[in-house]
Amino acid sequence: MYTIGIDIGSVASKAVTFDGEKVTSKIILPTGWSPKETGEKLLKILLEEKMIAREQVKTIIGTGYGRGSLSFIDKKVTEITCHGVGAYFLDPEVRTVIDIGGQDSKVIKLDCKGNVIDFLMNDKCAAGTGRFLQVMANSLEIDISDLSEVAQGDAPQKINSMCTVFAESEVVSLMAEGASKESIAAGLLQSVANRTYSLAGKVQVENKVYFSGGVSKNSLLKEYLGKKLGVEIYSSDMAQFIGAIGAAVIGYK
Amino acid sequence: MYTIGIDIGSVASKAVTFDGEKVTSKIILPTGWSPKETGEKLLKILLEEKMIAREQVKTIIGTGYGRGSLSFIDKKVTEITCHGVGAYFLDPEVRTVIDIGGQDSKVIKLDCKGNVIDFLMNDKCAAGTGRFLQVMANSLEIDISDLSEVAQGDAPQKINSMCTVFAESEVVSLMAEGASKESIAAGLLQSVANRTYSLAGKVQVENKVYFSGGVSKNSLLKEYLGKKLGVEIYSSDMAQFIGAIGAAVIGYK
Ligand code: SF4
Repeated sequence: MYTIGIDIGSVASKAVTFDGEKVTSKIILPTGWSPKETGEKLLKILLEEKMIAREQVKTIIGTGYGRGSLSFIDKKVTEITCHGVGAYFLDPEVRTVIDIGGQDSKVIKLDCKGNVIDFLMNDKCAAGTGRFLQVMANSLEIDISDLSEVAQGDAPQKINSMCTVFAESEVVSLMAEGASKESIAAGLLQSVANRTYSLAGKVQVENKVYFSGGVSKNSLLKEYLGKKLGVEIYSSDMAQFIGAIGAAVIGYK
Repeated sequence: MYTIGIDIGSVASKAVTFDGEKVTSKIILPTGWSPKETGEKLLKILLEEKMIAREQVKTIIGTGYGRGSLSFIDKKVTEITCHGVGAYFLDPEVRTVIDIGGQDSKVIKLDCKGNVIDFLMNDKCAAGTGRFLQVMANSLEIDISDLSEVAQGDAPQKINSMCTVFAESEVVSLMAEGASKESIAAGLLQSVANRTYSLAGKVQVENKVYFSGGVSKNSLLKEYLGKKLGVEIYSSDMAQFIGAIGAAVIGYK
């Protein structure tokens, strides 16, 4: 028997199958216009490609900002809970989860049993989220997926404004003044690290720290953030899936 | 004898001459790239066009975010003080000044003698400032100066996000769904009114309320804000100049 966890984020939607012990398959799609259609598509692909019959699926749990649109799920669970459970499942030593998604960021604290004991979320301000980096990549005329590679960490440009709108003007000015894209890109990653640091500073960050969400793939940002927080930051290739994993694990209980 | 007040804002720079009793001339220019050059240009135009000799000028006071770049001034005074003095000079019954400029917004409280007793300023977040409206006018493909005229107040669209970046996406979606520019424009003015209301709510707004800054020319926004605050809001054709007026009045003292 399997459970399925589906995490409909504002930008990316993730789904996994879980057999009670391990994640047996995972899939990610852009959320696009319709969370409902994307959710159905994820389910269809998981079942078909992995040749799982619907009867083999015990429970389907939905999470993420778009979970309300899913009609085929058995239960909805908040992102915070799913992220906590997912991170703890991947590594029971995790005490802090820092998640930077496409349009929000959150810091979640876990106790030694994996229970959420505190969390902070920013979904009101684009600064410090993937959206900030998206806007800035456009200004730099590079693809957001290239931002990490373009960035050279030696001498990052200082971006003074936290606000996405004001920072964008700074980037335009810096380019006009002849600053390199490499140094500006590094400055932008530093800016997101600083913003995340001030969010995380409001809770007591405890080791082990797991970095999740789409933005966690950015290694220079991870490095900057670790330096700021003074801790080593862990991540893995499952980092975008921990919400969906948490949902699937909850479904098994 | 005259005094001159120069207010170098982030978007617009203003200057006035004052003869000890009344404002005898006023001028406004875009701040552009160089606050220094703009300040010098303002001074030159004031003196030349109004045929004032440099010897007739007792003092020049600079204010506004770019005041630090002015080398020819006798003294720098903060915007908050100058706005307070300027508003009180125009109308001694003013107890609250709400100023929405190109990139910031502030609420200043005065006592019955015109002293600043409290103030709040937002210059970190583009939401609720002229910059918000600028970004949105671009999205609507209209000129910002036409925003007030285009807006139809009967059925404003609800804009859910305060954040400029997220609100811009909402505007794009609303247009794609066929909502009228008139209703979206009204919704955007409502959004700025709401944001200003929450800033103003942190101080006790007292009558008489004077609305200043470039955004105050927007009559529908003034109406929305008055309704939200439950007070009548005053303004005048001097509303963009109160910082410069305050500076000039201070120069005379
Ligand atoms: S600071 Fe900038 S990015 Fe953040 S809410 Fe305000 S407008 Fe949006």
